[in-house]
Amino acid sequence: MARLLHYPLDPFSRRIRLQLSEYGAEVELMEERPWEQRAGFLKLNPSGMLPVYIDDDKTVAAGVEAVSEYIEEAHAGFNGSLLGASAGERAETRRLAAWFDAKFHHEVGGPVLMEKVIRRFLANGAGGGTPKMNRVRAGLGRIRQHLDYIGALSEQRNWLAGDRLTLADLAAAAHLSCLDYLGDVPWSSNEAAKSWYQRIKSRPSFRPLLADHVRGITPPRTYADLDF
Amino acid sequence: MARLLHYPLDPFSRRIRLQLSEYGAEVELMEERPWEQRAGFLKLNPSGMLPVYIDDDKTVAAGVEAVSEYIEEAHAGFNGSLLGASAGERAETRRLAAWFDAKFHHEVGGPVLMEKVIRRFLANGAGGGTPKMNRVRAGLGRIRQHLDYIGALSEQRNWLAGDRLTLADLAAAAHLSCLDYLGDVPWSSNEAAKSWYQRIKSRPSFRPLLADHVRGITPPRTYADLDF
Repeated sequence: MARLLHYPLDPFSRRIRLQLSEYGAEVELMEERPWEQRAGFLKLNPSGMLPVYIDDDKTVAAGVEAVSEYIEEAHAGFNGSLLGASAGERAETRRLAAWFDAKFHHEVGGPVLMEKVIRRFLANGAGGGTPKMNRVRAGLGRIRQHLDYIGALSEQRNWLAGDRLTLADLAAAAHLSCLDYLGDVPWSSNEAAKSWYQRIKSRPSFRPLLADHVRGITPPRTYADLDF
Repeated sequence: MARLLHYPLDPFSRRIRLQLSEYGAEVELMEERPWEQRAGFLKLNPSGMLPVYIDDDKTVAAGVEAVSEYIEEAHAGFNGSLLGASAGERAETRRLAAWFDAKFHHEVGGPVLMEKVIRRFLANGAGGGTPKMNRVRAGLGRIRQHLDYIGALSEQRNWLAGDRLTLADLAAAAHLSCLDYLGDVPWSSNEAAKSWYQRIKSRPSFRPLLADHVRGITPPRTYADLDF
């Protein structure tokens, strides 16, 4: 069986788990803590980023762009594609996926996850210790504009990139869901974004993410609640 | 004719110019200064990132991932593909392209280009003024490890991702060429990396980049010299 090196609160890993599940593809999940810089992991992806996908035939795809496109090439077909059908739709899907992977993660998710999750696992000399709450606040201060963007797109269209669910929705939901685990998404600030998230959270592909548990960090009750 | 919104010293734009040229695809280049945040540009790409590609039929692809895959889908075929042939080669190409677009740009190219190029165009109240040379030094302090990685890959393989030229080479060369314009690449530190760059610099697709000129910043003579 194919294997996925992932971390439960890594948004890039979550996006790939959702994508595989939407295609009904089975995968063995192997938890990796990228900050531990395990030699076997760095050999598979020298950049030290998750996820890494190892196919049945040992083909390796490393990093979210490579894994995501690899899975599309393997699975998209008569069941449709999570990239979209036309060239324009596919460009829009990729533009929005990059928005969340780069801009959202850089401005919001990366700093918050670093401070509230990763820092607690680091040794004192390697950046471990108390979260820098000013960095958390600065990140969360920018989350509303992203929710507003999601809200606006999902009102113009059925899903973020167009009429149907695409990797853009999976990317956005993957990033937001990590912060939702921390109770840090102000859903009441945008009803349309909340309604979009309710739809995607109700999908069978989302269930395994709602059952994730990171030791020492208990999610709020609303995290797994479809009526949050 | 298709149009590309680009900036001469934007590494993401350069990668797409190389890709289009390798496929022999004509494009009208339109210079865009992304830091000016022109309304018409932000409408095409709300993230404010270059490049933006506008096809003959008005289809828009925005951001390097979307544009790059769009062009692959349109042009790859019996002339081969710049992604590679097998699924494993394609994953390796995308892994390495992401290495340069994310890791290299974050650690080296982004800070150096911000300080030495973009800052001179910004208003005083908006971050303009004297380059912060400590940020330049910190960025350039990490360039050697990337040259060593390029050198090691190009010695194991013919090109970075395998036997033939791929988007991985174009991405790496695009990022390095922007710093080379500033005279900031210590080529003598890795002979294999230099030899790889000589090969790619000699390709016809590279010529237009060597003729680029940004007002107020004169490249060193070696920038356009194939025997640097």
